[in-house]
Amino acid sequence: MSHPERDTRQSIVDTAERFFRDIGYQKTTVADIAKSLRMSPANVYRFFDSKKSINEAVLARFKGELEEVLSAIEAEPRSAGSRLRDMLLAVHRINQARFTDQHRMQEMVCAAMEESWDAILGHIERLDSILRGVVVQGIANGEFRDIDPVAATRCIRTAMIRFHHPLLMAQCEKMPGPSAEQMIAFIMCGLERPPAE
Amino acid sequence: MSHPERDTRQSIVDTAERFFRDIGYQKTTVADIAKSLRMSPANVYRFFDSKKSINEAVLARFKGELEEVLSAIEAEPRSAGSRLRDMLLAVHRINQARFTDQHRMQEMVCAAMEESWDAILGHIERLDSILRGVVVQGIANGEFRDIDPVAATRCIRTAMIRFHHPLLMAQCEKMPGPSAEQMIAFIMCGLERPPAE
Repeated sequence: MSHPERDTRQSIVDTAERFFRDIGYQKTTVADIAKSLRMSPANVYRFFDSKKSINEAVLARFKGELEEVLSAIEAEPRSAGSRLRDMLLAVHRINQARFTDQHRMQEMVCAAMEESWDAILGHIERLDSILRGVVVQGIANGEFRDIDPVAATRCIRTAMIRFHHPLLMAQCEKMPGPSAEQMIAFIMCGLERPPAE
Repeated sequence: MSHPERDTRQSIVDTAERFFRDIGYQKTTVADIAKSLRMSPANVYRFFDSKKSINEAVLARFKGELEEVLSAIEAEPRSAGSRLRDMLLAVHRINQARFTDQHRMQEMVCAAMEESWDAILGHIERLDSILRGVVVQGIANGEFRDIDPVAATRCIRTAMIRFHHPLLMAQCEKMPGPSAEQMIAFIMCGLERPPAE
């Protein structure tokens, strides 16, 4: 069964992503996207009220992919500590592959930070909530100390900002260490209950 | 005893700082600075070979002030943990007062990050070395776990980047928590040896 409306929406997002990647967000116009799809700009505007909304849809897809990877790790039957480690590393690796050395991709994020702060905030809160789920499990099963999971999750996310934030990763490349793995190990030290002696 | 050469150098840095603050780094010219001091540009160039070098001298003064505050805390006769906490908070408070909501001041830092990376790197390494001194003392006296002080110091500095970096502090103001105090408490959890039970 086909969904013409949904398919058209999807084609617009696909085409926009290609334009943003190839010529950059700032230089792309809604007219470019429409023309490439042999549609009228008015038809594109039936689905998205602005280029900003199209950018939000492109980024929402990236965010959805990232959140899926994290949710899959969360569901694995192993310790909270090892899942949290892998989740933090997965965000780093996915964003690094997607954004480092990809100036056009960074431009999309920059634009969203200026034009679509609520969407960015929603993504941060969604990530926090997935990470917090594992933190809560680790506290409940005694792996982690008895800490406030909300504050701890925010601290973990903030400690990793240099390794997760699409723009910062590029800016911080020239800074002296640590590696993402060292940073994660340091975070886990603050979280995990020391082994009984 | 007066030091005319040193005094002239000092006046150039004072005047440049005022210009950078008032009209911004990009718009200030060496000719502006010279004119305001009733000197010829050639005379300014006897002391500094470029506007970039003057900016480095202005920022070096800020960095010197920050490093002095940290060294004073380091010398206080109290636990490594309480000194490290205060040092991390001091960097946050000093940079926050100096740079947050001060777009012109952020412009100077931006320019230095592009034009004078070695100077920035030197500052990061100097801060690392002061922090590492306290980390080493804390390990030696048993307050801190037996960790690698070089890697740990880099992790501490990186975990605090959102609270210390002159540009990031402004960019991250709208992000949900944690506070600098919560972040520092979280870092100390990873560092301090748990009390014997």
